Amino acid sequence: MHRASVGIVGASGYAGMEATRLLAHHPHVTVRFVTSERWAGDSVEAHLGPCGSVGRLAYAAQAPEQVLELSRGCDVVLLCTPAEVSLALAPQLLALGVRVIDLSGAFRLEHAGHYPRHYGFAHSAPALLGSAVYGLPELFRDGLASARLIANPGCYPTAANLALAPLLKAGLVRAESLVVTSASGVTGAGRKAHEDYSFNEVDGDFRAYKVLRHQHTPEIAQTLGRAAGVPVGLTFTAQLLPVKRGILSTAVVTLRPGVGSGDFTRAFSQAYGGEPFVTLAPSADAVGLKAVVGTNRCLIGFACDPDTGRAVVVSALDNLVKGAAGQAVQNLNLMLGLEETWGLCALRAFNP
Amino acid sequence: MHRASVGIVGASGYAGMEATRLLAHHPHVTVRFVTSERWAGDSVEAHLGPCGSVGRLAYAAQAPEQVLELSRGCDVVLLCTPAEVSLALAPQLLALGVRVIDLSGAFRLEHAGHYPRHYGFAHSAPALLGSAVYGLPELFRDGLASARLIANPGCYPTAANLALAPLLKAGLVRAESLVVTSASGVTGAGRKAHEDYSFNEVDGDFRAYKVLRHQHTPEIAQTLGRAAGVPVGLTFTAQLLPVKRGILSTAVVTLRPGVGSGDFTRAFSQAYGGEPFVTLAPSADAVGLKAVVGTNRCLIGFACDPDTGRAVVVSALDNLVKGAAGQAVQNLNLMLGLEETWGLCALRAFNP
Amino acid sequence: MHRASVGIVGASGYAGMEATRLLAHHPHVTVRFVTSERWAGDSVEAHLGPCGSVGRLAYAAQAPEQVLELSRGCDVVLLCTPAEVSLALAPQLLALGVRVIDLSGAFRLEHAGHYPRHYGFAHSAPALLGSAVYGLPELFRDGLASARLIANPGCYPTAANLALAPLLKAGLVRAESLVVTSASGVTGAGRKAHEDYSFNEVDGDFRAYKVLRHQHTPEIAQTLGRAAGVPVGLTFTAQLLPVKRGILSTAVVTLRPGVGSGDFTRAFSQAYGGEPFVTLAPSADAVGLKAVVGTNRCLIGFACDPDTGRAVVVSALDNLVKGAAGQAVQNLNLMLGLEETWGLCALRAFNP
Amino acid sequence: MHRASVGIVGASGYAGMEATRLLAHHPHVTVRFVTSERWAGDSVEAHLGPCGSVGRLAYAAQAPEQVLELSRGCDVVLLCTPAEVSLALAPQLLALGVRVIDLSGAFRLEHAGHYPRHYGFAHSAPALLGSAVYGLPELFRDGLASARLIANPGCYPTAANLALAPLLKAGLVRAESLVVTSASGVTGAGRKAHEDYSFNEVDGDFRAYKVLRHQHTPEIAQTLGRAAGVPVGLTFTAQLLPVKRGILSTAVVTLRPGVGSGDFTRAFSQAYGGEPFVTLAPSADAVGLKAVVGTNRCLIGFACDPDTGRAVVVSALDNLVKGAAGQAVQNLNLMLGLEETWGLCALRAFNP
Repeated sequence: MHRASVGIVGASGYAGMEATRLLAHHPHVTVRFVTSERWAGDSVEAHLGPCGSVGRLAYAAQAPEQVLELSRGCDVVLLCTPAEVSLALAPQLLALGVRVIDLSGAFRLEHAGHYPRHYGFAHSAPALLGSAVYGLPELFRDGLASARLIANPGCYPTAANLALAPLLKAGLVRAESLVVTSASGVTGAGRKAHEDYSFNEVDGDFRAYKVLRHQHTPEIAQTLGRAAGVPVGLTFTAQLLPVKRGILSTAVVTLRPGVGSGDFTRAFSQAYGGEPFVTLAPSADAVGLKAVVGTNRCLIGFACDPDTGRAVVVSALDNLVKGAAGQAVQNLNLMLGLEETWGLCALRAFNP
Repeated sequence: MHRASVGIVGASGYAGMEATRLLAHHPHVTVRFVTSERWAGDSVEAHLGPCGSVGRLAYAAQAPEQVLELSRGCDVVLLCTPAEVSLALAPQLLALGVRVIDLSGAFRLEHAGHYPRHYGFAHSAPALLGSAVYGLPELFRDGLASARLIANPGCYPTAANLALAPLLKAGLVRAESLVVTSASGVTGAGRKAHEDYSFNEVDGDFRAYKVLRHQHTPEIAQTLGRAAGVPVGLTFTAQLLPVKRGILSTAVVTLRPGVGSGDFTRAFSQAYGGEPFVTLAPSADAVGLKAVVGTNRCLIGFACDPDTGRAVVVSALDNLVKGAAGQAVQNLNLMLGLEETWGLCALRAFNP
Repeated sequence: MHRASVGIVGASGYAGMEATRLLAHHPHVTVRFVTSERWAGDSVEAHLGPCGSVGRLAYAAQAPEQVLELSRGCDVVLLCTPAEVSLALAPQLLALGVRVIDLSGAFRLEHAGHYPRHYGFAHSAPALLGSAVYGLPELFRDGLASARLIANPGCYPTAANLALAPLLKAGLVRAESLVVTSASGVTGAGRKAHEDYSFNEVDGDFRAYKVLRHQHTPEIAQTLGRAAGVPVGLTFTAQLLPVKRGILSTAVVTLRPGVGSGDFTRAFSQAYGGEPFVTLAPSADAVGLKAVVGTNRCLIGFACDPDTGRAVVVSALDNLVKGAAGQAVQNLNLMLGLEETWGLCALRAFNP
Repeated sequence: MHRASVGIVGASGYAGMEATRLLAHHPHVTVRFVTSERWAGDSVEAHLGPCGSVGRLAYAAQAPEQVLELSRGCDVVLLCTPAEVSLALAPQLLALGVRVIDLSGAFRLEHAGHYPRHYGFAHSAPALLGSAVYGLPELFRDGLASARLIANPGCYPTAANLALAPLLKAGLVRAESLVVTSASGVTGAGRKAHEDYSFNEVDGDFRAYKVLRHQHTPEIAQTLGRAAGVPVGLTFTAQLLPVKRGILSTAVVTLRPGVGSGDFTRAFSQAYGGEPFVTLAPSADAVGLKAVVGTNRCLIGFACDPDTGRAVVVSALDNLVKGAAGQAVQNLNLMLGLEETWGLCALRAFNP
């Protein structure tokens, strides 16, 4: 069988490292190149340990011309770069005929108008916002096979949207009062030598950050709005956990009259019954990070209280896998017509 | 000055240990006795390290007759015992003329009818529910000086209620749709050799527990209802953090029309302007565990979004101090007519 | 190709869980059965998450007759059981014609006389101590292919012996004054609901345990004595780290006259040049847990100080993989004539 | 009683923060000023939380002229600065008539010749190396009361020297083959925004660093040589623990003929019988970080094996308290003729 040839730009960030590790063991992908400013010239092996033939690749520098040169002839390039860098590179790669999976937020939002406030820049390629396909396969698998540019979802949005979209789509909960509170491990902040992420500051601590101004808020609202068929009202709060990996998302929703647990179970079964990577847990209490960290799974559990008319839906995933690089590999498989689970099924939870 | 004589029942649980440590350094309290089943016969010093003359006390066994015998002549006895044990001991201590501060939930709820569902027992002393004074000084200082029985608040309720009561009292937020999501360190679960609380299970994990059935829910609702003047609608979710100590409570509320940040600031200033242990942080992002763990402080911060009509209020405290033993000492000071901060002001945050 | 059929006894302990996960993805092994007292009746998937067809196996109970019945016709049975249980089961399994890899200490020591003091029992099958093959492939690969009973090494001994055996064999260091200080993650203590291993006790703590009486001491000394050709003098100290997995072993040795860094490098290259799982790091400082946790690798680094005539040799491995289940799979491969790395080469470090 | 007036230079480093917190509650000290480059202009309270009147001080900038100006009239100035800064400031402060306690290594080594190799600079004030008094009260209390310049010991040296000096002084162990392996929490590395100390790198990891070239090696050897009366042979290895605070030091020593446990107990009792801050634990296993972190205590335990002629001595302390700021306060008390324990006796272990 033909092996797809893939390049990874931004391979020394946490998502890029994870993508490299995953693709190093993918049975039908050849990693053609990896780029990194910080590790340019080093072997992959020196940073990731032994990982087959990929380990002997050297990180290339990341100047745009070099990235374009390396990308020529690749089937797909993964951009594990900051949004500004992706925004600059993606159009040029597409122009070369290379398909792109972008792990940043540069192409996730339909409306260019969100970018100045949430990403700090005016969007320079608004036309691409229309043609980019949002790569959340369990909700929007159609279109991924033929996509030229996939916007790989954010980590918080993946956790929140997998938990709530089926309920909104089935009309079980009210769209106007969604409250999502999500805690992430420190790798979610990316690789930064900032004192805020030092061991002494993080260990034993827990806090919310970017309260009421997190850039993932419009991304969650956009997807849930698609599911609900109407704009949603959403209050999203992100929190920093003293763990390396994992997101736990806790959503509180208001039930429509007459709705109960059975309806929730049916909606989730219908949505995810055949999905390899999304699992309904027996209860909200049964959902925790340790069952998903290291894997491409999202675990969802819920509790309904018909007395108060509220329900709590808890979901968990690994922010670097299902929340980033794993989902990118899943999208890559779909884009290339491969088995959706290849390169992802042998992953093991890090537990204990 | 007269030194008050105080006894501590259940001194080997985490709250009891903390109470012992705090009172060992209290300038106007003599710890007359400490009891513990597990450590009976051992010196305090053997378990807590050097702590002055209290260190040389030996833990007494905890049979009811012995507790009563030891308590004779004490000014106050702290019950750091499970609710069932407190329920049995408190009436007998009161009958002896000893004043009681109970750290369990046995006397916190006004309605005896809540107990079977939330605590698993029918309440055997419902009359005391009427006379017990709920010991949250910043909200209900009146009545503490003369109380015979103080119900020391739960850890989650203290964090949630200090954050929301002033807003409800001032009519700034709607009472019917309160969403509180609170994460606690592992000491909140008490001292148990259960595998669920083993290092291998907890480290790197995060999960919600007792979803929609946590026993602190009616306690929070009761206090917020007092503040609002009407019954509140509350969805409370508790989560287990991989840290030893600390609670971070994240509340999402709906603003009444026209309400903004300035109103919040005024309400909090009015409520806590003169309070030694409650501090308004400059923002919601500025509230974290590390500033409060080890102290009797509660730190509160908020963000309002007039566009969506929602606000997020974050509060933090040490579950064993302001959430248990520290608040008990604060109540003890008030009960005895001492300075409210004695024994509490030299505490230092454990940061880093 | 023929798939070997393998059973796992004691599959709910940490080593047994790891063995199950590894063999679930082994390309030439079929896991025939798994046993567990605590999880009898549950599916593997319920505890380990999705792991292919192995996930749908149910844990069988662990009564000896049942284990023997299930083992009939298996090529190899892995005993992930306490030493006493292994000691009882191994002879019966061998009598059935089943080959055995025992992960406990029951067959590791040549001299039955060590058992009462170090394991707390008199050895009931001393003849097997002579025929058991010690399964540390990098030092003693001969004999593993034809072994009927492999004694899989202890975690501390694997780390210490891989670090020191080549130096002793090459006569570079004095055998009489070896000092090994090794810190292990909490999974090394096995799965116990003991308060000593609770999050609240372990997090933030570090301590030595079983000082001068750890049962791995004679096992290390035995292997190093074989390497040196003379009995060695060894002081071994074990320590408990607040991490889940990983052992870091720090050995201080006395150089023989004239010996320097170059000799060390040569000895290690000679010993491990072709080994897939043992790597010489560029320095002692470059050896840490995070590069090996999750993998079957042992990483070794050293520093020599000719002025003082001392050297420090640091080695790291994952106590559940190279220190237990991974090494067992490596031994299984050798026993069955398979590629030594099968089932082990796709493992990824858990970093970050 | 006269309150001593004290200044703290370098008050935003971890040791400086700890010194500030300790002196804020010292009954006979007035903190006159605190300096910090990074926090200049901020209030102490903004960084350390409420701490009485000290909380309302503002950090002054740290230009040398300003430090000298502020120091005029102070009784003592604490230098919590890097060695190069201390080396420049101390002579000028002494010239002003101000007594100095220096927490860096600038004045700890008797021989100026050690500085280039171990501290990276030639010593510019070698005469002060002769007059500086090494501030380890339990071993060298004489001379502290009259000292003008106290060299406050390093954290590793304090742990190692308190463990071994009494044994060497009593002639119980051989001086030529001391092996000390010590693990420290991350605050020991100081406050740095370096990626090496990020949560993602440190959590779950453990490694040795500066192997055979740690600058504390000559400091330990110097003190143990004084105790032994002869130069010692020492191999010291430092390790980085995934905890914030605490040092555990594990020393392996060779017994002189005929020496046993009783001799060790006698030597330690003689050395530390009356000491408030050094405690002999019932065993080596009983020594751990959690009993000492947050306090000024050093806990020591040992095990002897007469068969092999070796002993293991384990000691623990808080690197920021007994290993830095607490010991500085202890020295300050001695320097000023105050009770040695003032400001230190109310400290509580952070356990749990």
